[in-house]
Amino acid sequence: MRNINENTITPAVLESLADCPDPRLKEVLSALVRHLHDFAREVKLTEAEWMAGIQFLTATGQKCDDKRQEFILLSDTLGLSTLNVALNHAKSSQATEATVFGPFHVADAPQFELGDDISGGAAGEPLFVRATVRGPGGEPVADAVVDVWQADTEGLYDVQRADLASAQGRGVLRTDAEGRLHFRGVMPVAYPIPTDGPVGRMLDVTRRHPWRPAHVHFMIVAPGYETLITHVFSDGDRYLDSDAVFGVRSSLIGDFVRHPPGLAPDGSEQASDFHVLDFDFVLERAGTVGAGNGVR
Amino acid sequence: MRNINENTITPAVLESLADCPDPRLKEVLSALVRHLHDFAREVKLTEAEWMAGIQFLTATGQKCDDKRQEFILLSDTLGLSTLNVALNHAKSSQATEATVFGPFHVADAPQFELGDDISGGAAGEPLFVRATVRGPGGEPVADAVVDVWQADTEGLYDVQRADLASAQGRGVLRTDAEGRLHFRGVMPVAYPIPTDGPVGRMLDVTRRHPWRPAHVHFMIVAPGYETLITHVFSDGDRYLDSDAVFGVRSSLIGDFVRHPPGLAPDGSEQASDFHVLDFDFVLERAGTVGAGNGVR
Ligand SMILES: [Fe+2]
Ligand SMILES: [Fe+2]
Repeated sequence: MRNINENTITPAVLESLADCPDPRLKEVLSALVRHLHDFAREVKLTEAEWMAGIQFLTATGQKCDDKRQEFILLSDTLGLSTLNVALNHAKSSQATEATVFGPFHVADAPQFELGDDISGGAAGEPLFVRATVRGPGGEPVADAVVDVWQADTEGLYDVQRADLASAQGRGVLRTDAEGRLHFRGVMPVAYPIPTDGPVGRMLDVTRRHPWRPAHVHFMIVAPGYETLITHVFSDGDRYLDSDAVFGVRSSLIGDFVRHPPGLAPDGSEQASDFHVLDFDFVLERAGTVGAGNGVR
Repeated sequence: MRNINENTITPAVLESLADCPDPRLKEVLSALVRHLHDFAREVKLTEAEWMAGIQFLTATGQKCDDKRQEFILLSDTLGLSTLNVALNHAKSSQATEATVFGPFHVADAPQFELGDDISGGAAGEPLFVRATVRGPGGEPVADAVVDVWQADTEGLYDVQRADLASAQGRGVLRTDAEGRLHFRGVMPVAYPIPTDGPVGRMLDVTRRHPWRPAHVHFMIVAPGYETLITHVFSDGDRYLDSDAVFGVRSSLIGDFVRHPPGLAPDGSEQASDFHVLDFDFVLERAGTVGAGNGVR
């Protein structure tokens, strides 16, 4: 302990965790220390780089507030979020794949009835979503709580607009007895993740673009099933193969069919083009994925 | 890119860095991504643990302000700071070892003349420091800028006291023509690193104590020599073998000799016990250590 060098520091830190009473915490922290140290040794991290890292992490934390989560954005852009989802949601042949949670979910979004318009006045071409929620045996999942959130036609979520007094483009619905879900929103567009913070600087200096392909977020919670956090992406989007947060899965690409003016699925007469998305979600039974499904 | 799993995510993120124009940035970021992903895979990080990590890092950033640097404290307590110092300051047989910078340095500390009292009214038993600064050939280093900082007898740095209007226990001096340095401070005591933030919680849940053995910080800058950032620790301290930030080196332990009331080294008559520390610093020639010596 009095003669630590670049190699003996690692066992010294691990030894300091000897009395940690929580074995899982000890395991995770020990692995973190080993990999963090291996990283620094491998690149022979300079002191200027260490200080730059300290300042970057500090700025990332200080960019966060009740509406902005820059560390989730960092995790997303470094692929850690997608890796974490993949580790905890092994793809089965039948269940809908999970993808990243992202930084734009809001707890306690407004409640809606099936068929309602969740846009809250958000600008965009009308989108009519018709979905089903089923279990792995094909059985309908009634009364599932479906949390939906999406950006408007300018690519912004309501929480990114300081002037908004109420929610836009987000809502909570429940499936009917046949596991069906339908609502109206707006056609999503590709959008850049927020670039006015440290993560934006990181993308800029590495010449990465900040764009995500157009999508709608879904979180589906139902007793007896694993919670599903996912997106449905719009087929044909130019960013499907270069999503800035590595969230795209082939199975999550849906056909947002454009229709000319006329009768919409909700019986209304639309004076301009509108879109219809049909998508079927399949949940895993509870207990069939990793124990870590605890974001919520 | 559309069918990413827990293994393919890593090459996908590395590929996203393909156009990074700075080869060193690309190298460091690529290594960071590989080791971060390896960590998550090794422990099979759960989603609840991922979220706990996001919240911990966010809180760490938000604990920082102009007087508090919680990310340096985190780096220190995880041994990353000591590792970084070791990587950039290979121990030579003659030069004084470097150790962690710590979070309590302040730029633009008050300037003092040799022999001055830098305590600024900080409470504590008087300490008289008599030091020399030499080069590797034994040559005196004249006019070296020596930045000193230390805690008071309650174990607190001035920046930890909200009520202080001026500096205490810190100052900048210059060596004389013979490379000598002498000043008066207060006898340092062991102190706990700040435990009212996320790092304190981390120490608490892992049953690590927050204590550091008594020490005085020195940063010595002189043209033609490598900047030395180090401490001198007090021999006999009970925490020398369990420093919370892994900063102790045998060669940095000094004898803070206690003297009964009487004549002090500065010619003053002391009515109570006082301490005298003699210590000789040896600098490396510029260019003989890693290129990363750039904290300042
Ligand atoms: Fe999104
Ligand atoms: Fe200190």
